[in-house]
Amino acid sequence: MRNEAAKDSPLVRCFRIDAPVPSLEDNIADLDRLKQALQGAMRKEGIEGYSLHIPFQLMGRLAHAFRTADFCGFVLVNMLPAYGEVVDFVSVCPELLPGMALDLGTTHLEASLYDLLTGKKLAEGHIENRQIEFGSDILSRIHTAVPRNRELPFEENEGLKKLKESVTGSICALTDQLAGRAGITSDAIKAMTLSGNTTMVHLFLGLSPYHICREPYTPLINEPDPCHADDLGLNVDAMAPVWILPSIGSYFGGDLVSGILACGLDACEETCMLIDVGTNAEVVLGNKDWLIACAGAAGPALEGGVARMGMRAGPGAIERVAIDTEEWTLAYETIDNVPPAGICGSGLIDLVAELYLARVIDFRGKFRGNIQPESKEHAAFLEQRLGEENGEMFFVVARPQDADDGQAVILSQIDLDAMMRSKAAMYAILTTLISQVGAGFEDVETIFVAGAFGRHINPRQAIILGMLPDLPLSQYEPVGNSSLQGAEMILFSDSYRRRSKHIRKKITYVELNVNQEFMIRFSGSRLIPHTDSSLFPSVPVFEGSGTTLTS
Amino acid sequence: MRNEAAKDSPLVRCFRIDAPVPSLEDNIADLDRLKQALQGAMRKEGIEGYSLHIPFQLMGRLAHAFRTADFCGFVLVNMLPAYGEVVDFVSVCPELLPGMALDLGTTHLEASLYDLLTGKKLAEGHIENRQIEFGSDILSRIHTAVPRNRELPFEENEGLKKLKESVTGSICALTDQLAGRAGITSDAIKAMTLSGNTTMVHLFLGLSPYHICREPYTPLINEPDPCHADDLGLNVDAMAPVWILPSIGSYFGGDLVSGILACGLDACEETCMLIDVGTNAEVVLGNKDWLIACAGAAGPALEGGVARMGMRAGPGAIERVAIDTEEWTLAYETIDNVPPAGICGSGLIDLVAELYLARVIDFRGKFRGNIQPESKEHAAFLEQRLGEENGEMFFVVARPQDADDGQAVILSQIDLDAMMRSKAAMYAILTTLISQVGAGFEDVETIFVAGAFGRHINPRQAIILGMLPDLPLSQYEPVGNSSLQGAEMILFSDSYRRRSKHIRKKITYVELNVNQEFMIRFSGSRLIPHTDSSLFPSVPVFEGSGTTLTS
Repeated sequence: MRNEAAKDSPLVRCFRIDAPVPSLEDNIADLDRLKQALQGAMRKEGIEGYSLHIPFQLMGRLAHAFRTADFCGFVLVNMLPAYGEVVDFVSVCPELLPGMALDLGTTHLEASLYDLLTGKKLAEGHIENRQIEFGSDILSRIHTAVPRNRELPFEENEGLKKLKESVTGSICALTDQLAGRAGITSDAIKAMTLSGNTTMVHLFLGLSPYHICREPYTPLINEPDPCHADDLGLNVDAMAPVWILPSIGSYFGGDLVSGILACGLDACEETCMLIDVGTNAEVVLGNKDWLIACAGAAGPALEGGVARMGMRAGPGAIERVAIDTEEWTLAYETIDNVPPAGICGSGLIDLVAELYLARVIDFRGKFRGNIQPESKEHAAFLEQRLGEENGEMFFVVARPQDADDGQAVILSQIDLDAMMRSKAAMYAILTTLISQVGAGFEDVETIFVAGAFGRHINPRQAIILGMLPDLPLSQYEPVGNSSLQGAEMILFSDSYRRRSKHIRKKITYVELNVNQEFMIRFSGSRLIPHTDSSLFPSVPVFEGSGTTLTS
Repeated sequence: MRNEAAKDSPLVRCFRIDAPVPSLEDNIADLDRLKQALQGAMRKEGIEGYSLHIPFQLMGRLAHAFRTADFCGFVLVNMLPAYGEVVDFVSVCPELLPGMALDLGTTHLEASLYDLLTGKKLAEGHIENRQIEFGSDILSRIHTAVPRNRELPFEENEGLKKLKESVTGSICALTDQLAGRAGITSDAIKAMTLSGNTTMVHLFLGLSPYHICREPYTPLINEPDPCHADDLGLNVDAMAPVWILPSIGSYFGGDLVSGILACGLDACEETCMLIDVGTNAEVVLGNKDWLIACAGAAGPALEGGVARMGMRAGPGAIERVAIDTEEWTLAYETIDNVPPAGICGSGLIDLVAELYLARVIDFRGKFRGNIQPESKEHAAFLEQRLGEENGEMFFVVARPQDADDGQAVILSQIDLDAMMRSKAAMYAILTTLISQVGAGFEDVETIFVAGAFGRHINPRQAIILGMLPDLPLSQYEPVGNSSLQGAEMILFSDSYRRRSKHIRKKITYVELNVNQEFMIRFSGSRLIPHTDSSLFPSVPVFEGSGTTLTS
C-alpha cells in the first residue's frame, strides 16, 4: 500500500474488554454490560459517539460466551458507516484477524489476504474470472445478463443468475486458494473489500446491468451499502462485512476510485493525472480541489486473453521486448524468467514501439511488405521473424523452440490493428479530458500509470506509439494494480473508506460515448505517433508521417 | 394515547419522491437517484443528516419498481435509530400503512392496529398467552426455559424453544385477528412495537431467562436492537421493524417504561408516582429530574386466571361490587353488562373492601364465623352468600342462576389470602420506595394507577384495604393499560422512542428481593387497613385493629 501509516481503523476490529462481574449494585443486562465495556474500550481508542448494534441472531450466543468468559475477553466489531456491529466474542485474543482485499476484474481476479491485527500480508493470489465462458468482454456479459423479456423480475433472469454464480464461484475459489496459503480456513476470514468496474459489481450483486450500456448510461447502483458475506453466497465468515468501493458511473467503476486513492490524486497540491488501462481506458485529472474523469473502450488489446497471444501479466508473460537494429537481434524478458507463454500489455507496447523503430511496421501500424534488408543480419532477422498466413502477415516474438509449450508467441496484423485502436483511443481520451478544463499536458505535474497495463510499463515506448503524451519520463509514475491497492486501503482504514465516498461526490464525469470531440481526436490519433507529429517532437518520424490516413 | 399530538415520526414512514428522469447530464445510478430524492423529501419534513440504507436483497426489486414507475412514487422507510432503511417503493400512494402495537403480557396479549398515515385506529384485540400451558406465572416459565444441562448452547434447549414458539404463535394469531378485523392481510402490517416484561421479552426473543430470577438478577439483554419481523418468525411483513421497549432490569420491564411514557412521569414538574400491578407490582416515583423504581411479586391475586374465579378485565368480568348494609343486598356490574363469568382485579378489590366494611371478613382478611345477624335481611344475606366446603368458607358473589355458564362466581378463603398478600406487598413496595428518597406520600402530587388492575379501579376501595395510601381521591389518576399505550406511543413517535431510551438511563432501580426493610414493611401491611391504622385515618376500624397479627 502506498500509505502504510494510514491503518486507522480496519473494517473489522477486535477490542479487549474487561467488564465488572454483575452484582446487586450493578446488575445491568449482560449484553448492555458488553456494549458498555465495548464503548469504554472504543473511547480509549478515540472512537466516540458510535452506536453499537447486536444482530438478533447472535444475542444468545454472544451473551453465553461473555458470561462463560467471566465478562472479559475480545469483541469483534464490524466498523460499518452508521454503526458498529458486534459479531463475535471470544475469551482469548485471536491469533489472526484475516481480511481479504479483492480486485474483481473482467478477465482476472486478484486478491490479497492480511492480518488486520498486525497489518501483515498473509497471502496473495489470482484466478481467471470464470465469467469468461460467457464472453471475454463486458458487452458480451451484459448481453448474457439481459432477460429476453425485459418485464420479467430480475430474479427470473437465468443469464444474470449464471453470471452471478460464476463470479461468486471464482471468488470462493480464490478465497480458498489464499486461505490455504495462509494455513487457515476460508470461513476464518472476517472481512472483505472489493474493487471492480461497475458492470462486474452489478453482476456480482446479481443486479441487472441492462441500462449500463444504454443511453444515458445509468447503473442501477453506484454505492451499495455494505452487506454480509452470507447474503452474497461467499465462503468467508457469514457475518463478514463485504465493502464494495463506490462507482462513479457506468464506465467509471470502483476500480478507478481505488486508483485515485492509491495515487493520492484527490490530495495532490498540483494537478496530476491518473491513467488506468484495463478493459476500458479510464483517466482522471485533478488535484485536492477538483477531479474530472472520463473513460472509453480502449483496452482489449492490452488485456490478457484478447490478443491472440495476449496474456495477463503473470509468470511466462513477455513484458519487455528490445530489438537491436545494429545486430538485428530480438531480446525479451518474461515475468519470473520462465519460458514465454504469451505477451502481456506492457510487452505488447514495447514490442510494437520496437517494431516501429525497427521499421518492421509503418506509421499506420501495418506490417511493411517487401522490406529491403540493409545487412545480412537484417535479412536473417526478417527471414526468421516475419511470416504470412492466409494473406495476413505476422511477427514471431518467441520461436517455438524457446516457448513454454513449443508454440511460437506471435503478433498478427489483427492484434496490431487492435493495438492501434487502443493506443488511439487512449491518446484521444487523454486529450479530450485535458481540453475540458482548458489545460494542456504541460500543466500536469505527474502522470500516474495504473492497471495491469501499468505494472511494468515503459512510458518511453508508449510515447513512441503516441499513446501517452511526449513528456519527460520523470513525470511518469507507475502505480501497479491500483484497484487491488484501493481495496487494501479501505480494508485497513476508515479515513480511506470515507475518502472513497468523498471522491464520488467530488468528481465530474465526462461521458465520452456521446462526445463528438473525442471521435475527431480518435481519428487523429490512429497513426504512429500521431497525424500531427509535432505533438511528439522526441519520436522519430519515418516516411509518410504527417499525411492523412488513407486506408 | 395520552398525547395524540406527538405523532412526530412513526416507526415506518412513507415519503413521496419525484426524481428527475436520467439524462446524459444527470446519469447517476437508479438507487442513488432514489436515495437522493428521498433525502430531499426527508429534508422537507425536517429530517437532516440521517443516513439511508438499502438492504442488499431489495436492491434489484426496488430499482426495477423505481424505473418502471418513471422515477416517481412512494418510498417506505423503516426509521431505525442509526439510519433509515428503505424497504419498499410503490408507484401509487398506499391506502393504508398498518402498524401494530402489542402489549405482551404473561397471561394475555393485547394489541391495537393503526394506520400510520392518518393515525386512525383500525382494530384492537386480545388473546390468551399460549405459554399458559407451561405455567401461569413467570417463575414456572423460567423453569421450563432452563436446560437440564446448563452448558448446552441455548439453541438446543427444547423448553426455551417451545416457549418461544408458543408466544410467537400467540402473537401471530392475534395479528391475524386484528388484520381480519381491519380487512387486511397480516403481511400488510409494516411495523410492530412491543411492550412486555423482561422475561416475556427474553422468551419471545428465544433468549435464556436463567439469570433473571437468580441473584444478582441480571437479564441477558435490556435493550434489544430493532430487528426484522422475519427474524422473529412473525407473520407481518418480513421487513417490518420490530421495536421492543427497553427494560430496566429483571423485574422492571419495558411494560413499565411504557407506563412512564403513558403518564408522562419523566416530564412531570412535581413528584408523582406510577403504580402498575400486573403479575408484579411495579412502582416508579419521580419527576422530570429523577426517577426511582422498584418492583416485587404482588399481583397474582389481581391477575385474571390466578384466583379461582379470577379473570381478565374482559366481557363478563365483575368489575364493580357494592354491598348495601341497610338493605343487605349485593349489586355488581360486569364489563359489557353480560352475565358474570368471573371477577377481575378491580372487582376483587371492590369486593374485598365491601366485605370488610360489611364485616363479613375481619381485619386479618379471614371470613368471620358465627356472625350475629342484625336484621332479617342480614340473616338472609349471610344465608345466601356464605358457604363452607371442606372446612373452608367461601362467599358467593354471583349465584349460579345469574352466572354466564350456570356456575356461581365465588370467593374462597384461599383467594382472600392471596389477595391479602398482594395488598400487603403493594403497600410495602410503595412505602419502601418513598422512604428511599426520604419523602412521604404527602410529597406526591399525583398517583397514576396503571395495568389491568387499574382499568376500572376504585382507589377508595384500595385505600380501605390499605393497599394504596390514604390520600384524597383527587390525587389518583387511572391510566388504563399503559403497557399498550407506551407501545402505541413509540409506534407513532420518534421522540417517544428516544425518551424510552433516556428513561432507561435516568432511572434508579431498587432491588426489593434483597431489601430487609421491605420484608418488615410487608409484615406490617398484612392487616386491613394496616397494623398502624393511624396511617389510614379515613378508614373505619372495627374490633381488634391495631393488635399484632397472630395467625
